[in-house]
Amino acid sequence: MEKKGTILSGMRPTGKLHLGHLIGVLDNWNKLQDEYNCIFEVADWHALTTKYDQTEGLQTNIREQVIDWISAGIDPDKSIIFVQSHVPEIAELHLLLSMIVSVSRLERNPTYKEQVQELGVKDSIPFGLLEYPVLQAADILAFKGTAVPVGEDQLPHIEITREIARRFNYLYDEVFPEPEAKLGKVTKLLGLDGRKMSKSYGNAIYLSDNKEEIEGKVKSMVTDPQRIRLKDPGNPEVCSVYSYHKIFSKSRVDDVAKGCKNASLGCMDCKAILTESIVDYMADIHQRRAELEENPELVDQILANGAQKARKIAKETLEEVRNAMNLKWE
Amino acid sequence: MEKKGTILSGMRPTGKLHLGHLIGVLDNWNKLQDEYNCIFEVADWHALTTKYDQTEGLQTNIREQVIDWISAGIDPDKSIIFVQSHVPEIAELHLLLSMIVSVSRLERNPTYKEQVQELGVKDSIPFGLLEYPVLQAADILAFKGTAVPVGEDQLPHIEITREIARRFNYLYDEVFPEPEAKLGKVTKLLGLDGRKMSKSYGNAIYLSDNKEEIEGKVKSMVTDPQRIRLKDPGNPEVCSVYSYHKIFSKSRVDDVAKGCKNASLGCMDCKAILTESIVDYMADIHQRRAELEENPELVDQILANGAQKARKIAKETLEEVRNAMNLKWE
Repeated sequence: MEKKGTILSGMRPTGKLHLGHLIGVLDNWNKLQDEYNCIFEVADWHALTTKYDQTEGLQTNIREQVIDWISAGIDPDKSIIFVQSHVPEIAELHLLLSMIVSVSRLERNPTYKEQVQELGVKDSIPFGLLEYPVLQAADILAFKGTAVPVGEDQLPHIEITREIARRFNYLYDEVFPEPEAKLGKVTKLLGLDGRKMSKSYGNAIYLSDNKEEIEGKVKSMVTDPQRIRLKDPGNPEVCSVYSYHKIFSKSRVDDVAKGCKNASLGCMDCKAILTESIVDYMADIHQRRAELEENPELVDQILANGAQKARKIAKETLEEVRNAMNLKWE
Repeated sequence: MEKKGTILSGMRPTGKLHLGHLIGVLDNWNKLQDEYNCIFEVADWHALTTKYDQTEGLQTNIREQVIDWISAGIDPDKSIIFVQSHVPEIAELHLLLSMIVSVSRLERNPTYKEQVQELGVKDSIPFGLLEYPVLQAADILAFKGTAVPVGEDQLPHIEITREIARRFNYLYDEVFPEPEAKLGKVTKLLGLDGRKMSKSYGNAIYLSDNKEEIEGKVKSMVTDPQRIRLKDPGNPEVCSVYSYHKIFSKSRVDDVAKGCKNASLGCMDCKAILTESIVDYMADIHQRRAELEENPELVDQILANGAQKARKIAKETLEEVRNAMNLKWE
C-alpha cells in the first residue's frame, strides 16, 4: 500500500507507561503504522532539557519505554523505533538550524513561558529549555517528516518547525517538507482517583501491571459516593469505574450502566467486569511483554536496527543540508 | 620533548589573511607548535552565527585560510589542522553542554551584548549568537584543551568554557580539564593608512600578495606629513612606514630612524628598504604558498588527515561524556 507520508513522533523516557499513554497516544500510533512510514523516537536528549541532573535511571527508563511501546503494538518490522542520542546527525542538524532562528522567536514560544513558570526556574532557566523547539525541529526534519501527531499544547512547536523549514528552503535550497500537525481526537483516561493519571499521584495502571495488580487497583477505584448500599441506585456518570467501562468494556457498557442505575449490579461485580475488560484489552500487550522479557537481547537488537535505519535516513538528509549550506563534507 | 598541554585555537573563515593576522596571531601559533600539542580549527560553523545567509564563498574562504595558515608556518606534521564542520562530534558535545548552561549566563556575556549592538540586530538576534560561547566550549573541550591563546576580548568566552567544564565535572564525572586563557603579548600592525588593518578598509597587505603587490602597497603608505622636501628632517614616530620597520626591519630600524631624522634617507628609499624587509620576512611564506598552489590536492589531503586525527580525539572524549551522562552508546 502506498503510504501517506512520514510521521515522526516520540516521547521523553521518563519511566514506565500507563493506560493513559496507551489510550491517549500508543493506540493512535498503532493505527498510524499502516497508513504512514512511522518513526518513533525515544527522546533522551529532550529529557535532559529539564532533567540534566537526574540521568541515573535514564537507560532503565529508555528500555522500559521501548518494551512498553512494542508491547502496545508498535511493530519494529513496520516502524522505525530508535533512541535520539543514537543518531548524532540530529545534533548536527540542531546546530545548523539554530543559526536561522532568532532569540526572540524562541522566547515568544508559549510552551517555553509555561515551562519556565511550571518549573519555577525563572532565575536560572536551562538553555536547553529555550532551544527545545529547535531540537524538536531537527528530530522531525532529519527524517523529512510530513506529519506529526500532536496535542493542542504542542501546536506552537510544530509552528516553529514549519517556520524553520520554510526559512531553510528560502535561504538555501528546497530540502524540507513543511510538516503538518496531525491533531487527533484524543481520548483522555483519568487516574484511579479521578484526577489526571500520573506516576506522581500513584493513581495509574501500568502497561507492565499483571492481572493481580490490575485487579487490586480497580478494587481501589472511587465509585459514586452517593451509592452507599448495594440496593441504592448509582449514577454512572460520576463514577470513575464507569468512565473506564466506556473505554475498555465497549460491548457491555450499556448493561453496566443499566445495572448500576437500577441497582442490579453491585460495585464489586462491576469492578470485576472492568478488571476482566482491561485484562482482555491488554491480552496482546501482556503476551508481547512476556516474549520481550524472555529475550532481553531482542530489545537491544531492535534498537540497534532502528538506529541503523534512522541514521541512514538522517545521513542522507544531512548530506543535502550540508550541500545546500555550502558546508561540503566528504 | 614533553609537551606542556593541548592548545585549541581557531579562526572563522572570513577570507584571505593579511600581515595583521600574521603578526598578531599566526607568528604566535607558529611558536606554540613546539611547546604544545596544537589543534587549529577553521571555525566554519561559527561563521554561520552571523553570516548564515552568506555561505556562497565559504569553501573558497576555508581553502584560502588553510593555505594562509600553512604558508605562515603552521605545520600539519606538528599540529592538527581541521575544519570544524568535518567533526560532527563537536555538534553533539555542543548540544549536551547546552543542557547545563543557563539562559541568563549566556545573556550576561559581554561579547554577546557588544555583538548585538555592533550588528544592529536588536530585534532579531540570531540564536547562534547567543549560543556562540557554548559552541566554543565544545570546540575546546572536545579536545580537552588545556590552554587557549586569546586576546582580552575573548576572556569572557574562556570563562564560560571554564564554568561549563567545572559544572560538567561536578554534575557527572571528572572528564574535562579547565582550560587556561593564554594571554600573549600581542603585536598590533596598523593598516597602510594608519587605521586598523582590515579588508573592508582596503588597507591591508595580504599573505598572498607577491613582491610587486607589496611594493605598490608600500609606495602608497602615508609618511610624516610635515616632511615635504627630501631635505626636511622627518619624525619617524608619526610615520606608518617606520611602524612597519620596527616589526619587519629589526636589524636596520635604528639606521632608518637616524636617516629619517637627519634627512639623509628619503621616503622613497626608506620604502624600498621596507619592501625588501617585508619580502624577506615573507620569503618562506611565499615559497610554501607556491608549493601548495602547485599541488592543490595537498590541501585536501591535509584537511582529510586533520579531520581524521581530530575526530579520533573527539570521539574518545564523547565516549567519556556519554558514559558520564548515562547516555550509553554502542
